[in-house]
Order: sequence, then structure tokens, then C-alpha cells
Amino acid sequence: MEGRARVVIENVEPHVREGGPVRRCPGETVHVRADVYADGHDAVRAELLYRPVSRREWFRVPMIPVGDDRWEAVFTVESQEDVEFTLRGWVDRLETQIRDLRRRDAGQVGEIEFRSIAEELRALSVRASADEAGFLQRAAENLEKAAGKAEAELILSRPEILRCAFQYPDPELVKSLEETFKVTVERGKMRFSSWYEFFPRSACLPFSRKGTLQEARLRLKEIARMGFDVVYLPPIHPIGKTCRKGRNNGLLAEAGDPGSPWAIGSELGGHDAVDPQLGTLDDLREFREEAETLGMEVALDLAFQCSPDHPYIRQHPEWFRWRPDGSIQYAENPPKKYEDIVPFNFETPEWRSLWEELRRVVLFWVGQGFRLFRVDNPHTKPFAFWQWLISEVKRQEPDALFLAEAFTRPKVMKKLARVGFCQSYTYFTWRNTKQEIVTYLRELTETEMAEYFQPNFWPNTPDILPEFLQFGGRAAYVIRMVLAATLSSCWGVYGPPFELLVSEAVNGKEEYMDSEKYEIKAWDWDQPGNLRDLIARVNRIRRRNPALQQTRNLRFLECENENLVAYLKTAGENTLLIVVSLDPFRTQTGALHLPLSELGMEKGHPFLLEDLLGGEKVIWYGEWNSVTLDPQELPARLFALRRHLKREQDFDYFA
Amino acid sequence: MEGRARVVIENVEPHVREGGPVRRCPGETVHVRADVYADGHDAVRAELLYRPVSRREWFRVPMIPVGDDRWEAVFTVESQEDVEFTLRGWVDRLETQIRDLRRRDAGQVGEIEFRSIAEELRALSVRASADEAGFLQRAAENLEKAAGKAEAELILSRPEILRCAFQYPDPELVKSLEETFKVTVERGKMRFSSWYEFFPRSACLPFSRKGTLQEARLRLKEIARMGFDVVYLPPIHPIGKTCRKGRNNGLLAEAGDPGSPWAIGSELGGHDAVDPQLGTLDDLREFREEAETLGMEVALDLAFQCSPDHPYIRQHPEWFRWRPDGSIQYAENPPKKYEDIVPFNFETPEWRSLWEELRRVVLFWVGQGFRLFRVDNPHTKPFAFWQWLISEVKRQEPDALFLAEAFTRPKVMKKLARVGFCQSYTYFTWRNTKQEIVTYLRELTETEMAEYFQPNFWPNTPDILPEFLQFGGRAAYVIRMVLAATLSSCWGVYGPPFELLVSEAVNGKEEYMDSEKYEIKAWDWDQPGNLRDLIARVNRIRRRNPALQQTRNLRFLECENENLVAYLKTAGENTLLIVVSLDPFRTQTGALHLPLSELGMEKGHPFLLEDLLGGEKVIWYGEWNSVTLDPQELPARLFALRRHLKREQDFDYFA
Repeated sequence: MEGRARVVIENVEPHVREGGPVRRCPGETVHVRADVYADGHDAVRAELLYRPVSRREWFRVPMIPVGDDRWEAVFTVESQEDVEFTLRGWVDRLETQIRDLRRRDAGQVGEIEFRSIAEELRALSVRASADEAGFLQRAAENLEKAAGKAEAELILSRPEILRCAFQYPDPELVKSLEETFKVTVERGKMRFSSWYEFFPRSACLPFSRKGTLQEARLRLKEIARMGFDVVYLPPIHPIGKTCRKGRNNGLLAEAGDPGSPWAIGSELGGHDAVDPQLGTLDDLREFREEAETLGMEVALDLAFQCSPDHPYIRQHPEWFRWRPDGSIQYAENPPKKYEDIVPFNFETPEWRSLWEELRRVVLFWVGQGFRLFRVDNPHTKPFAFWQWLISEVKRQEPDALFLAEAFTRPKVMKKLARVGFCQSYTYFTWRNTKQEIVTYLRELTETEMAEYFQPNFWPNTPDILPEFLQFGGRAAYVIRMVLAATLSSCWGVYGPPFELLVSEAVNGKEEYMDSEKYEIKAWDWDQPGNLRDLIARVNRIRRRNPALQQTRNLRFLECENENLVAYLKTAGENTLLIVVSLDPFRTQTGALHLPLSELGMEKGHPFLLEDLLGGEKVIWYGEWNSVTLDPQELPARLFALRRHLKREQDFDYFA
Repeated sequence: MEGRARVVIENVEPHVREGGPVRRCPGETVHVRADVYADGHDAVRAELLYRPVSRREWFRVPMIPVGDDRWEAVFTVESQEDVEFTLRGWVDRLETQIRDLRRRDAGQVGEIEFRSIAEELRALSVRASADEAGFLQRAAENLEKAAGKAEAELILSRPEILRCAFQYPDPELVKSLEETFKVTVERGKMRFSSWYEFFPRSACLPFSRKGTLQEARLRLKEIARMGFDVVYLPPIHPIGKTCRKGRNNGLLAEAGDPGSPWAIGSELGGHDAVDPQLGTLDDLREFREEAETLGMEVALDLAFQCSPDHPYIRQHPEWFRWRPDGSIQYAENPPKKYEDIVPFNFETPEWRSLWEELRRVVLFWVGQGFRLFRVDNPHTKPFAFWQWLISEVKRQEPDALFLAEAFTRPKVMKKLARVGFCQSYTYFTWRNTKQEIVTYLRELTETEMAEYFQPNFWPNTPDILPEFLQFGGRAAYVIRMVLAATLSSCWGVYGPPFELLVSEAVNGKEEYMDSEKYEIKAWDWDQPGNLRDLIARVNRIRRRNPALQQTRNLRFLECENENLVAYLKTAGENTLLIVVSLDPFRTQTGALHLPLSELGMEKGHPFLLEDLLGGEKVIWYGEWNSVTLDPQELPARLFALRRHLKREQDFDYFA
């Protein structure tokens, strides 16, 4: 123990208290804060030390006090390598003495004070470089000869002095935190991605009706044109026959019913096989390569469960639960039953071999060139398993990213993000009113969650056709799309029924009628009124505007109509003002408040807004401005703010 | 690692994150909370384990879920011994199966389900006691023979079954926290104490004018009559002569000026000596014994600083800073100077011997029978030093308590409490308006601070005569006394000038004119209009009402007058409603809201309130009631609430 290091460093942020990473992508900043203080009134210094984990030397950044003993510093993550940081602080006696000299009356200051500071300068020079040591020694000599306070202050005002004091503190007086704090760095896809889900078996050519990966490959160009960069496929493995579900989740399939792709495994193979009806591993590779050529990645579905026909059940009966009559325990959450699915028993004494096999499966697909995984129901498998699995996979493939398909309790959602899922499905699907949206987004962007939980906003999924889409018509689809694609930098749609505005639900439920989960659909891709062009426009706006490529940079604006939600997204010079009507039926008008001075703008000076979605241009002058949104036309505006429109000549732009 | 233990336990409270104790006194409860959850939908169980640190066996308390995956349990601290607690949790398969059986339709339930549960019962019986095992095995047999769901449910409804499941979980599936959480248990004086400060040298008999401990001893009876239980003496050590301060902090003392007692040390001795002008160690012992006979304790002042004449300066020059001219560095905070005081240099390479000597000093006074220490300016000595010192002293004398005299920045105040000071001076002295009082008390009683920071509210000190007392007259004194003595369970006054309403300050400052710090005062103890009887009444009310012996049990009430502050203090059946006017000049009237239903009372039923301070009795019926306070009379009411006055015969009480 070193009793002389008097500084205390506490309450360091960002830091996820109960464990789990602070996540960043290359190019993003980390805004470090801590309480730093000492006893007494002496001058305190603090610095941030950070380094990519493979580097020995630390980068040093001075921290700045911001009041209430809180200090801050910022650094930028340069590359896709984890970073660690720590803090240190000390009481600076030289700085204290210089400060005290300034505070004293000239009459109180004399030779003794000068000699005292000169002693400190010489002590510091011993730790400095040769050049600096010379400078410090000369300063000490001059100080000893100073005629009075004014001259002494002049000598001591040279910035080199405090720079050296900061550079070379007395190591015996420095308090260094023992703890280092980790920043997990993921590739940029974590932060910014646009997902398109479709069932390849429904991508039939009109003349074939087979629905193979080869046919599905022909849809990729259009998906790319719509601006998506991730194509997510539900499970592509052989589907079980025993207890196969029929149409509309019917208990018994009829001949020809294809079954749910999530009932994985048959005599044709399990989690590492491609369903022969879809094609071969080669077909899958070609599908992936074509997607990549078009600038997209393919995400696979990891659904760790089996059909009753899965090879594992014969090969590894120890991984399952068996009932007293020798039958296998299917999945259930009474009174709900899932007879076509058998869960793994993660409480088996043979859990180690089960974990290892599942790792083998993921690494198999990594070996096939896949780096994005949407994980089905991760909240029904142990957290410790995911933590282990994801870290094992990332050790081999740092580019691997895992999206948690969890719609469950808040603390479970957060825990999954903390054990390794770097994107997650969210409650957005059911947040419709302004208050719901604002409250939820504030939690996602302004609390500790923003450090580790990257939301991925989905207006629909094969499991969920929300009520709002059932009754709201086309405008409802546009509303939910614009909200998803601008509130979160990651969004996705279950594509075909979304772009085709499918809205028929099973009575009283939020499930699709005649769900594609249980049958092959022949989509009328070019159905008039489809949303494809609008989707393409929204995704293009996302690509062109860095402000839409982050999630935390959100600021809600005051707006005097509960049916209108307005927010700013800002990244550097790129500022978007987004206004969305939450009413799919009636025209809504409201005044919204723009905090001009915070945007570096002045009241009374005109500024231009251009709606990137509808094309409208408006000029505003003040803080309160009115917006009218007609759902029959477009229930949303994505205004780009041109801030510097302050002189008349700028208006030439309109000519 | 055990991959089968699926439960997660996180975010345990109470727990002071940056280190430091959760403090309790014997008889107080600890309300433990934690997030406990698992993957999936299985039944989760959690329990609290606690024990006094000297005990091997844990006491076990089932935790109760309260929503959002939060669980709670409560235990009571029985004796003055530190307690530790930890948590464990598990997924209970038997409970899950019984729950699922209930959820199933009768038609879905049959022999297989019964046999499956019977298997679990038998597995459980292996871990149970012989009696319980027999019971469980019989239940298993009966279950296997059950005719249907109803009979099975009847068999499984026996409470012994889930009790055994809770008592004997499968150890391989149990997740036990590795961390244990500590509760530091202090004696009751920490929580409830009433302090009276006076300078013994001013307690002169009219005929002697010497001011010795023997004379001061004669004041103890009256201090006890006023209801105080701690007598705190400023330093009683020899006072230095070099640079001794004169009256009103004058730079040079005149002959006969006694100097500030905080300028400790002369050729007559240092921190372990009694100033011969006050008397001897024996006189001090007699003073202490007399106080104890009267039910009071004596608190000494630890002021770790020296006069320029202190023996340490010759014996241990290495503990001080020396200036280049060979003179010693006196205390200063430029432009303020304290020429009569020399600080220790805690950055000395000889810090170890300094720490050890200061420990010796405290243990010397502990050896003399003292267990309460008011520590002067602790925020100007290193936190690490206090942490070490206090733990060292408490190892020898667990009854030792330290009050921090710190009026400094919020984080420093909290840190001192976290390193060992179990009571602290506060900002109360400057919190005068309703909003200031409510905001500050909420921080003290409703945040993490309530776990470790016991405030001690002082309306005045020898250093501070607040403006409010300077201009507010007698009513201001009563207001501040009632607030201090009822908002906090620990309060204190710098006695003589408080009871005698001394209000003359140094011009423009909050300092006493002709401060007793620099001169011997001849107080006119029996001056008419003094506050002694009222102080005695307030302290008597505190002693008789357990609600005033805690600090966290505070609840502010809505009150429609910004000059009136109203709050409830509750402990079991003891409920006080306190209303204080913050206006020392004008009569104030306001309606206040009593949350009757939360108090177990009904609207429309009369209830009696008796003002324990002024004697007034009122009967109220509803939630909103009006109170009028005339500062010329009494600016406060301390109503005892007699809740159960619901029948006419109860009114006999008034007869």
C-alpha cells in the first residue's frame, strides 16, 4: 500500500456494472467520465490511458474537470480491435504552488516562495527529457532571481512548465487504478445494417413452383435495389416429418405441407445440412456469393432445437429429456405445446458435449463463409452457454455478429446483450404512441443500455403482424417503416408481406393468416401499390446520411400534437429533422420546437429544409414551426437541415 | 465452471458500489433486493443467506419476487456484530412440473405426467431428512396411483412438498454468488444521539473565572436535564504560544488571550496531554464519569494539526514541510492563512511513522475511556489514512464512533462516510427553504447515502452562525432546532450561544462576533428568555418517540404554503406529524395532505392529534387539514397521531 497517493478515482463510466462489454465500432468515440478528487485543496490532475489490447504502450489523454469532482476525456476507436482503458491521477505540488502564488497578494510573495517553487522545478527536471530538464532548470534559476510577483508569474506562465508537470508526475504520488476497463470493438455492421428476411422456398419462379436457393438467388438484385445490406434466411435445414405442423399451425400436416423450417432435422441431416428441397451447400454458397457481389451479407438462423426426427436424438439421447414411458419430451409452455419441436436439455450432466457440438455447428457455417447469425429464441437457453459460445466463435472469426431474436422480459433482453449478442430485437414492434416511443427510445439511447445494446427495429416478423399494421392500411406501413429506419440505425423487415402490405391476421391474434411458416407462398411480387420504391428511398437516405447510421444521436423535440413525433438525428454536419404522424387515418398538424441556438443557428435567419422522402422544400425562420402530415400522401417528413443558409445569395440554390 | 446452474443473480442491494459499508445498528433491518432470473419459463427460487461474521452456519430466508425479475427478503440485525449476507438461486424442476400440471387441461394429464413428477419427488427424498423422505416417497407412490388431475393436485398441494423442494435443492443446479456482502454494525449511538458542545474554559464559576474541567463538571447536570446524551469538548490540549491568535481571530494575541484550542501543542505537551489550565487527566476522568452517571458520553475532538510549539516539530521534523529558509510551512489556503497552525505533511516519505503515532494518540484516549470522537477537518487528511486509522481503532474498541466535521464538496463528504466516519456534519446548516430542505433530505434518506451516511444536524457551530439565526430572532432558533432534532435522528448544538440566542456576527460573515474560539466567555447562563426548557422538551420528545430515533423513516407531505414544511416520521405504531413554519416573522397558514389510507386510517373517521411541543390537541376527519403557525408563539407543531380513534368512547380521553 502506498499511503502517499492521495487521489481517489471512482465511479468510472462507461462501464457496465454487472459485467458485459461496452461496445463500439471503429471510428466511434468513447466518452470516459470519473470522479477524481483528493483531500484538501491541492491541485489535482487526472489522465486517461487507453490502448488497443495488442499494444504495450498507452495513449495518454488529459482529463478535464467538469464540476462536482467529475472529470472527462474522450478517445476514438481506430480499428477493429478491442481497446482497454484505465485512469490515473495525482496531486500536483508544483501546480498547487504556482496557483497559490497567483492567489497571494504581491506583498505576501518573495524569495522564499520563489525558492520553494524552484525546488519543485528542479525535482521535476530530473524526470523530464534532457531538453525539458534544461528548460526547467533555467526557469528555476530565473525564478530565484525574480524581482517580484509579476516577474515570477511571467516566468511560470510558460506552458511548457505545466505540460512537463503533467507529463512527468512523481510516480510515488500517482494513484493508478488497478482495474482496466474493456471496450469490445465490433465491425461497423453491428451499428448500421438493414435486414431483409424472406423464405427462400417461397421465391418460386412462376413456372417452377419449387422454391429453391437457385430461384431465390434471382430475388437478390431487387433486394439490393431496395437498399438492404443483410439478407436473412430462416433455417435452411431438413425439416422433420414427425408431428409436422400443417397450415395455420394445424396439429397435423397434410401431404405436401412443407412444415416449419424451425422444426430442424430429419434423416437427411441436422443443423449442418441444407434441405435438399432448397438445394445443396454449393447452391447456398452461390447464393451468398451473389449477395456479396450485390453488397449484401447473408445471415443464417441459429435455432438450437430439433424435430423429433433429428439425427441427434438417436446419436445423443443424453442431450434430451425422456419421459417415464420412454417418449421424448417435446417443447411446451403449458398450456401451449410445440409437438414438432424437441428442446435440448441444457441441464443434462452431458452439457459439455452438447455445448461443444453446438460450437462445431456454428464454426461449420463460419467455415462456409457466414458471419451474421440471427439466433432464434436465445432466452430459452442458458446465458452461460451463449457467453461461452459467442466468445469461442469470435476467437476464430472476430467478424461474427449475433442478433438475438428475443421478445422477453427487460432484464433477460439486457442480459443477452451483455453475454455477447451485439444486436437485439426489441419492443419497438409494440410501441405505437408518442409517449411509448419516447420513453422506450430514451431508455435505449440515454441509459447504460446505449453502451452495449444495439437495437434492431422490426415492424413485422413471421411471428408478428402487429395490430397497427392489421388495421392501419398503407399509411401504417409507411409510419412503422420510417420510425424503424430512422429511430434505430439497424432495422429489418420480414420482406415480402411487408412490401406487399399483407395485413390479414388470425382472428384476434397478431399472427399472419396462412402464415408462410407452414406453407409455400406464391407472392405476387409486382402487385400494384407495393412499398418497394419507398423502401428503396428510405434505405438510400439511410446510406447517404451518417446521422441515420448511429442510434444514440437521437433528440426528441417538443411538438404540440400527441399524434406527431419529431426528432433530430445529428452526426457532425449532417442533421436530419424527422417528423412522423402516428395517425394513419387523419391529417395531423402541429407546431414543433427547434432548439436553434444549440444547433448553431440564429433566430430570424432563414434556413432551408428539404424533405428527402417527399421532396418538399421549406424555409423556416424561427424556433416554432408548423408541420402538416396527410397519411393519404406521406405520413412522414425526413428533412435535411441546411444550417448555413444565412445570406441572400444562398437562395440561388432554389433557382 | 458449472454450466448447469442456469440462474443469474445480479444488482444486489444494499451495496455501496464504490466500496464502503452498509451501516446498521442492532435491531435494525436490512432489506435485501436482487435481480434473479433464468432462461426460459421454469420456476425460479432464490434465498438470502446471512450470518454474524463469527458464526459458521447461515440463516436462510426465502426471497419473494416483486416484479420485473426483482426479488426481496428482509433480515434483522440482532447484536453489535458485523453481518455478512449472500444469495443463491436455482431453477426448481419439481415446482416447474407441478405448476405445469396445474396449467394443463385435465385431458392433457395422465400417468406419464404423474410418474414424471413422482421421479422428481423420489430424487428430492434422497436429499431430505428421514421423516421428510418417507413423506415424499409416499407422495410419489400415491401420485402414481392417482386417478386424474384433481387427485394428483390434491396430493401435490401438501405444503411440505414445496417446503422440501426449497430446503433441499439439487446442489449441482444451485447458483451461489461468490461475493458476500458486508453489513457493518455499530452501536445504537450512531443512529440516535443529541450532542451538546461547549468550551470547558468558559464554564467559570462566577467567583473563580478560571474555567477548569472541575468547574465545567458542574454544568453537566443542566446539560443532562436538557436531554442531551453527548457532551462534546473542543480540544483540551495545551495551546501553542507562537503566532497565537487574539480576539476575533486577531493576528497577534495580547497577554492573557487564551488562543484557539485547535492550535494544539506547547512545551506542556501535545495531543495526549490535558492543558494544565483546564486541569489534569484525573479531572478529565472525573468529568467523564460524572457525565456517564448522568447518562451522557463525552466526545473528544481529534484535530490532527499542531501549533508551532508542538513537541512533534522538534521530535519529528520529517512529518512537516519546511521552507527553503528553514522555517516551517504553516497552514494556508491562499489568500487565507492560519499562522498558528502547522499541518502534517501526509506526503512525507515517513508517512508510516506518522500514521502510527496518530493511531497511538487515539488509542491513548480510548484507553482513557473515550469512545466518541468528533474529527476536525477530516477532509484535509488522506482518505486512506482515515480508513486505516478507524479500522485499527475499531479493532480494539468496536464501540468507537467517529463524527466527521466536514463541510466540503458532496463527493468528499460521502467518501469520508465510506472510509469509516459513521456520522457526519451536513449542509443542513444552510438549507432554509422548503425546496432546499426537501431536496437535501430526499438525498440523505432515499438514495444510497441512507445506507452509510448518518447525518448529524447542527443549527450552529463555533465556526458558523448562519444568517438565518442572525436576523430571525428567537423563532429562527426554534425553527432550526425543531428541524434539526426531528429531520435527523442525530443533532447537536454549540450549546451556550444557542440556548442564549447569541446572534451578533462579524460583519458580513457567518462568524460569531467575539468568538469563544479566541477568548474565555462569561456566559449569563440563566439569561431570561433562554431556550433551555424548550430544548429539554424537544429532547424529551425525541427520547419518548422511536419515530424520531431513525432518519430514513421520513416522508414529506404535500402542503400548500411554501413557508410551511410538513412531514411524517413513523416507527411501528409511533407516528409523528411535524409541521414547521420557515418564516420567523409572520403567521403562516396552510392546508396539508395526510395520506390516510396509507396510514391505515379511514376518511370521515375522526382522529386525534396532540402537539407534544405546545400541548394543543386537535381532531381531524379528512385528508386535507389546515395548520396555522404564529412565530411569536411557536413556529412548529410536533403532533403525535393517535390513529385508532374511531369510536365515540375513545373521546373519553378528552374528558
